[in-house]
Amino acid sequence: MRRSSSRTSPLAWPVRIEGEEVLILDETLLPQKVHYLKIKDYHEAAQALAQMRTRAFGQLLTVFYTLLLTARKNKKKRGEALLKILKDAAGEIERSRPTFPFQEFTSLVLHWAQDSHRKGEDITLSLEERIEEFFDKIRRKGQLRAREAASLIKDGDTILTHCNVSGTLVAIGNVCREQKKEIKFIATETRPYLQGARLTAWELKEAGFPVTLIADSAVARVISEGMVDLVIVGSDRSAINGDIANKIGTYQIALIAKEFKIPFYALTQPSPKGVASGKEIPIEERDPQELLIYQGVKIAPEGTKGYYPGFDITPSRYITKSIPIEIG
Amino acid sequence: MRRSSSRTSPLAWPVRIEGEEVLILDETLLPQKVHYLKIKDYHEAAQALAQMRTRAFGQLLTVFYTLLLTARKNKKKRGEALLKILKDAAGEIERSRPTFPFQEFTSLVLHWAQDSHRKGEDITLSLEERIEEFFDKIRRKGQLRAREAASLIKDGDTILTHCNVSGTLVAIGNVCREQKKEIKFIATETRPYLQGARLTAWELKEAGFPVTLIADSAVARVISEGMVDLVIVGSDRSAINGDIANKIGTYQIALIAKEFKIPFYALTQPSPKGVASGKEIPIEERDPQELLIYQGVKIAPEGTKGYYPGFDITPSRYITKSIPIEIG
Repeated sequence: MRRSSSRTSPLAWPVRIEGEEVLILDETLLPQKVHYLKIKDYHEAAQALAQMRTRAFGQLLTVFYTLLLTARKNKKKRGEALLKILKDAAGEIERSRPTFPFQEFTSLVLHWAQDSHRKGEDITLSLEERIEEFFDKIRRKGQLRAREAASLIKDGDTILTHCNVSGTLVAIGNVCREQKKEIKFIATETRPYLQGARLTAWELKEAGFPVTLIADSAVARVISEGMVDLVIVGSDRSAINGDIANKIGTYQIALIAKEFKIPFYALTQPSPKGVASGKEIPIEERDPQELLIYQGVKIAPEGTKGYYPGFDITPSRYITKSIPIEIG
Repeated sequence: MRRSSSRTSPLAWPVRIEGEEVLILDETLLPQKVHYLKIKDYHEAAQALAQMRTRAFGQLLTVFYTLLLTARKNKKKRGEALLKILKDAAGEIERSRPTFPFQEFTSLVLHWAQDSHRKGEDITLSLEERIEEFFDKIRRKGQLRAREAASLIKDGDTILTHCNVSGTLVAIGNVCREQKKEIKFIATETRPYLQGARLTAWELKEAGFPVTLIADSAVARVISEGMVDLVIVGSDRSAINGDIANKIGTYQIALIAKEFKIPFYALTQPSPKGVASGKEIPIEERDPQELLIYQGVKIAPEGTKGYYPGFDITPSRYITKSIPIEIG
């Protein structure tokens, strides 16, 4: 059954706020179960981030909604006290994982809060408005970004992707559909968390796009066989020189794409500021057990040592074009 | 506990013959269970090959032992009748999987059988002798190959490997130990069958060598971070121009190694003859279910399409040096 051409991926906006709860779509349970975690405070939010219940754009949403949640729950507090609580919340969120630039976003919210306080405004009300406005801009710019990416795709193209770009490939596919361009996807499974299999294959299939899953090790083979026209990946963080940090495995795909002269496009996160180069981006080292055990099944003999860098840095020279959400 | 310095991997000679049974070490059950399949005839042998119960060098052994088994079971038959049965057995083995050059080895055995028949010798007895002699040569040349490979390794080196080279890395490591060279290994997990996790990490750990497991997607990261001094992989088949066919994922490792100017060595199978170039090597396409389901756990939503080429071709220009077992 062909789905409607404007179907949006549930991953496009995986976190929201309802009253005094932040709802986080638990990506670790997808696609078997579409379940939203009910986050009551910033401690729970930081824990959900550390456990990778959401990633990438979901992390950005979690920052804003969790700080807004904190403000809502403490709106009776006087200004300075509320600012202090917001700062504590920001600190705990920033410490949850190293690679995503949490601090760029927490400092934006804290700046908004301080600014309202200085002007004598109600901090919580002011944050409600500013965050809504910020997200409206992201939604609009996100649509523009999807159009820009779609303009790089020709009728009949096959797009290779890695990990998951939070609903953006579905948005791009929808634009291609409007433009009567038939496109296909090849998704890497993206070990060890299998976001390619569990999230990307799922959201593209749900939206009615043809998608074929491959092992991460099959990229050189499919590209060398002429099965891929372009690569599109996301990015968890960008540097000013154009380097990007993204899910481990992105770097080698970029390198292979360059070798075979296939365009490699990176959809980058909105970024209020940034570090100078990829070298300055700290790379998270996850618990090797996440590599060594999959859904309770041990994949290596007891006591095997593992090394699991969660991300890698793709130098800008391998990136044909970065397509950012411009919010500056 | 440090193991003895001359411990041999059970994977070094994973198939043997005992009376009228061929015993195949079932790699799919490793490392949890060390179990030998008891093969009664060539039909069962072909099935075990198709199900990937053994691979690479184990496939070579299976060819010889299965044809010898067939000869033993039919030794009372007159010459022509026995030759016919051997030819049937060879045909069924050759059809089990496409990438490994079964035909190179079956035709060698058939040639030996025809030769003895022409000379009026007992075919079965003659095969016993010739196969034993052939394997003696492989054992000797295999030891020489391990020494040659070890000579390329320096004290303190870290060796990255992919899939499993049937005990050869342990043999190389043992030579390094004799030479007082401390070495370490990084093994890719090698999806989807996880031979790197289940076989390579296991045999190296059992033999007392330090080994760290990484996802297939982490190769560019670990090499770019200077964590690897050289790459050693095996090969299921070589072409005369130096191209090799090996487990899917080998090609991209070679490409990354070249980019970072790390030597890439291929331990190649004994090969009586060969095709001109890698382009002529047929690449097996395995059932996508082997990618989509791991030990009963579905890793992708129901109905997802998968593509699972079992091998890729690494062009010779990416290979610093091939280290063959010379039997010519």
